[in-house]
Amino acid sequence: MRVEDLDTPALTIDLDILSRNIRDLAESCRRHGIALRVHTKTHKIPEIARLQLQAGAAGIVCQKLGEAEAMADAGITDILIPYNIVGARKVERLVRLAKRATITVALDSETTARGISEQAGEPDIPVLIELDTGGNRCGVQSPEAALELARNVVQLPGLQFRGIMTYPSRPQAEPFLTSTRALLEDAGIRVPVVSGGGTGSEAVSKQIGCTETRIGSYVFEGMRRINRTDNPPNPVTCASRMIVTVVSTPTPERIIVDGGQKTFASYPPIPYGYIVEHPDARIYGMSVEHGHIDVSACERAIRVGERLSIIPQHQGMTTNLHDTAYAVRNGIVEAVWAVAGRGRVQ
Amino acid sequence: MRVEDLDTPALTIDLDILSRNIRDLAESCRRHGIALRVHTKTHKIPEIARLQLQAGAAGIVCQKLGEAEAMADAGITDILIPYNIVGARKVERLVRLAKRATITVALDSETTARGISEQAGEPDIPVLIELDTGGNRCGVQSPEAALELARNVVQLPGLQFRGIMTYPSRPQAEPFLTSTRALLEDAGIRVPVVSGGGTGSEAVSKQIGCTETRIGSYVFEGMRRINRTDNPPNPVTCASRMIVTVVSTPTPERIIVDGGQKTFASYPPIPYGYIVEHPDARIYGMSVEHGHIDVSACERAIRVGERLSIIPQHQGMTTNLHDTAYAVRNGIVEAVWAVAGRGRVQ
Repeated sequence: MRVEDLDTPALTIDLDILSRNIRDLAESCRRHGIALRVHTKTHKIPEIARLQLQAGAAGIVCQKLGEAEAMADAGITDILIPYNIVGARKVERLVRLAKRATITVALDSETTARGISEQAGEPDIPVLIELDTGGNRCGVQSPEAALELARNVVQLPGLQFRGIMTYPSRPQAEPFLTSTRALLEDAGIRVPVVSGGGTGSEAVSKQIGCTETRIGSYVFEGMRRINRTDNPPNPVTCASRMIVTVVSTPTPERIIVDGGQKTFASYPPIPYGYIVEHPDARIYGMSVEHGHIDVSACERAIRVGERLSIIPQHQGMTTNLHDTAYAVRNGIVEAVWAVAGRGRVQ
Repeated sequence: MRVEDLDTPALTIDLDILSRNIRDLAESCRRHGIALRVHTKTHKIPEIARLQLQAGAAGIVCQKLGEAEAMADAGITDILIPYNIVGARKVERLVRLAKRATITVALDSETTARGISEQAGEPDIPVLIELDTGGNRCGVQSPEAALELARNVVQLPGLQFRGIMTYPSRPQAEPFLTSTRALLEDAGIRVPVVSGGGTGSEAVSKQIGCTETRIGSYVFEGMRRINRTDNPPNPVTCASRMIVTVVSTPTPERIIVDGGQKTFASYPPIPYGYIVEHPDARIYGMSVEHGHIDVSACERAIRVGERLSIIPQHQGMTTNLHDTAYAVRNGIVEAVWAVAGRGRVQ
């Protein structure tokens, strides 16, 4: 099947660009001497996770337990869930999953630690303690709080203390990480893992003392985040394309395509996407099922029925809206991938 | 099963509120003497569509062909797709679907009309012409353009001209609608259907000459759209609740819950949702899997493991993120509904 034969909207992934992105980051991490733990939230596709592992990734990251279950179902055996697993039902699922894959979890409270410990059996659940080094999300607030929690984790049955994590990796995080490690080691608690993260974080993660770094969006975006200002989408480094059809040309300035917020996700003020065939066209708005495009700057008229290739700018959120992605090389659909981790909110 | 037994995040729908909303709008439309064609984009759940039809709705609306297929699979037989169906593959699906349900489509160009006509067989495809009365999306731009297109539709085999449609219904649309109807009738083209739409549109739709009005969000929101300013979410009229768990309380001012953009959809600057148990708490941000809540105004401390009920403010987009919704009455889960129309982007 060729790309032209796909009904639209269709999420396609260029295999050559994908492979190059995967190879480039693996090489960069090797060069920096830091382990790469790939975050699968961007793609949620086990086949892509396998390509990343084959290229040298040390393991994967899933943000939710349900995504980890999907990846374990596909045979992946080393998964970090950097998320507090809370509640008896969820811990029950965690304990079950831990019997068929190594599942490391992050936590930031004694309540979460006790909850897991109470239900854990064999094997022990590996645990990282999350530090809030300025991300202002989850995480303990000081090295002393990290030490207190680590002492709890070490004593609780069913848990195995493995280290610390933070997000994102930034130079400002270094004093918190270093002090915490020193406090823990002085207390006789070994810290084999220091986990950092963020796209483009391999150098800074190494510099602030991390042993591994969690990076995800590079598979579709290339080595730098695409955003509105300093790095707009580049067709050479961006692997994904949403193929859409022009369904209406109501005025000479406006065309409407068959993908809107339900196809591209909505995250103003970042634009929705970049139109490869018409870089001068501008997606100025989206309703749920319509993409509204200003074509007043385009040289030639665009007609109803034409197909356009749009690079989505909210990659992970966009993937999460689709059941299927089409792996493409030179215009040929080489594989149809289920987005197995899609919608796994629990 | 009780709501407390659901793992989180879980999308629940209160059956009493839902039924009341369905009844109230049906009564209002009867009172105004206008047919109600319920838009299913808000819920995408066939069971809810059936309740709406039982309460007197004249038919349903689906924004995409794939959603219509899901509703037809559930036995629903009168569906309007107010969308240009473009491309041979999609028209093939439309023609197939039209053999098992009455599928009316809207279109705004001769290209779309010819595309459907070329593949249509038995039965004819009923067609409305879409007018751009100021919505600035799809639609012909003048009554004269509508007449020209209607003449085409009337002559093309496989199509049956049924009338005109617009969105949204507003008093300003009246001259365009009236002129178009007059032009068409003068040309000997009957206009049995004038379709308007928008929540709260029953009175204005009637007033500007519509025969039916398309309304959707009322099932979850009540009779008025919930938004930030004049009508915040009201637990008495809003039927849906996202049940989430507090997973982190990193500071006294901040709690983190286990639902973020992947659970609630993102549509700044409208807030993400309203917390029923803590109206003073404020969801100030969301990352993909975390909801960030400011609890500095709350009287009592909120602990890790507590569950909260949040009324999502982007109802349709939120439903589209979930495979399952739980129908609840008095805290008991009475039914588990598949969100059958979810993700049907094509």
